[in-house]
Amino acid sequence: VSPRSSAEDAARTRARIVHAAVNRASALGLESISVRDLADDLRMSKSGVIGPFKSRSELLAAALDMAITTFQSTVIEPTMRTPAGINRMADLVERWVDYLTQCPFPGGCFITAASIELDNRPGRLRDRIAQTVGRWHEFLTREVHALNPSQPVERARDAATTLIGISMATNQELQLLADPAAGPRAKRAMRMALTTFTLNPPIAPDAGKT
Amino acid sequence: VSPRSSAEDAARTRARIVHAAVNRASALGLESISVRDLADDLRMSKSGVIGPFKSRSELLAAALDMAITTFQSTVIEPTMRTPAGINRMADLVERWVDYLTQCPFPGGCFITAASIELDNRPGRLRDRIAQTVGRWHEFLTREVHALNPSQPVERARDAATTLIGISMATNQELQLLADPAAGPRAKRAMRMALTTFTLNPPIAPDAGKT
Repeated sequence: VSPRSSAEDAARTRARIVHAAVNRASALGLESISVRDLADDLRMSKSGVIGPFKSRSELLAAALDMAITTFQSTVIEPTMRTPAGINRMADLVERWVDYLTQCPFPGGCFITAASIELDNRPGRLRDRIAQTVGRWHEFLTREVHALNPSQPVERARDAATTLIGISMATNQELQLLADPAAGPRAKRAMRMALTTFTLNPPIAPDAGKT
Repeated sequence: VSPRSSAEDAARTRARIVHAAVNRASALGLESISVRDLADDLRMSKSGVIGPFKSRSELLAAALDMAITTFQSTVIEPTMRTPAGINRMADLVERWVDYLTQCPFPGGCFITAASIELDNRPGRLRDRIAQTVGRWHEFLTREVHALNPSQPVERARDAATTLIGISMATNQELQLLADPAAGPRAKRAMRMALTTFTLNPPIAPDAGKT
């Protein structure tokens, strides 16, 4: 074989291993991944599984990166064709909830599961997921604020937490409760949070208090 | 010792073991609990740890039950002195968010972590957490609907998902991002969701769409 095609083979093998790791981790957690189980899944030797990554910890980092990239390319990037505003946000809500209901990983939202699993395990994986979640908060805050720049940024940040929260509760309703109404409910709840933010004049968080 | 005090001793020992198990599980997950680690934590023998429970799986079930009971007695029960309505709900929001920010368990919200950990592990623990989460949804839906019975129940159910979601996102902001603004933000976001629900005339989920 030529050097070119053997490099392609190596990349393909690496991608197969990462894919198998993400599938296992989405169901039972990143730390549950054993090289032996992956070797069994892929009918490879343990040294063949670990070879492209040098160590199990590099393999877990590659699995986390693949899950993050999948979310970005499925949910975020396609919306970037539209300028910031209500149409782009409506598109984002559709794609985000569809990603949860038609999840590419068997165990549900990988990033939510990994963030809970890793929040008390200091190290590189935890740093990577914290950075990813932090950037997602910042991105959503900018997107929400663009819907109604007359509102304070703090209110957009509150709305970003509400949207992320709805996605987490929806993941729970899908994965734990197997509730078929969870997807449509998530879209209504997200649209409601955004509608509230875009109202003029704005309503205050305790306007309904008696 | 009299039979009475030896029964009390046994109950106290059992409670100490459950407490140690909840502390470990809140940080690293229920499945991470090993009888050996608990024995080390408590300076007991392994048979002394497992004795009051018959099996590790009974011990895990007791830990989950203790976490559920702690949430109920800290957050829900004290609000029951007030009749259903905006004051009771405001009290519930305060207690719920304070429970997240001043968490009784070192690893953060036990029920969220357990629900993610167990959602792909069929069995008694998963059934118990699914039942608990399902009842919490039903309870919140009734409480929210009481704020404005002229709204459809579906809207109250949507708001319940929004509130539960905000609590999950807040747990992430506290545990993963160590964000000191997370608590006040959660209270604002929850009050906003409730205010939106109580508005008359109601706004529709896509009223802000252009």
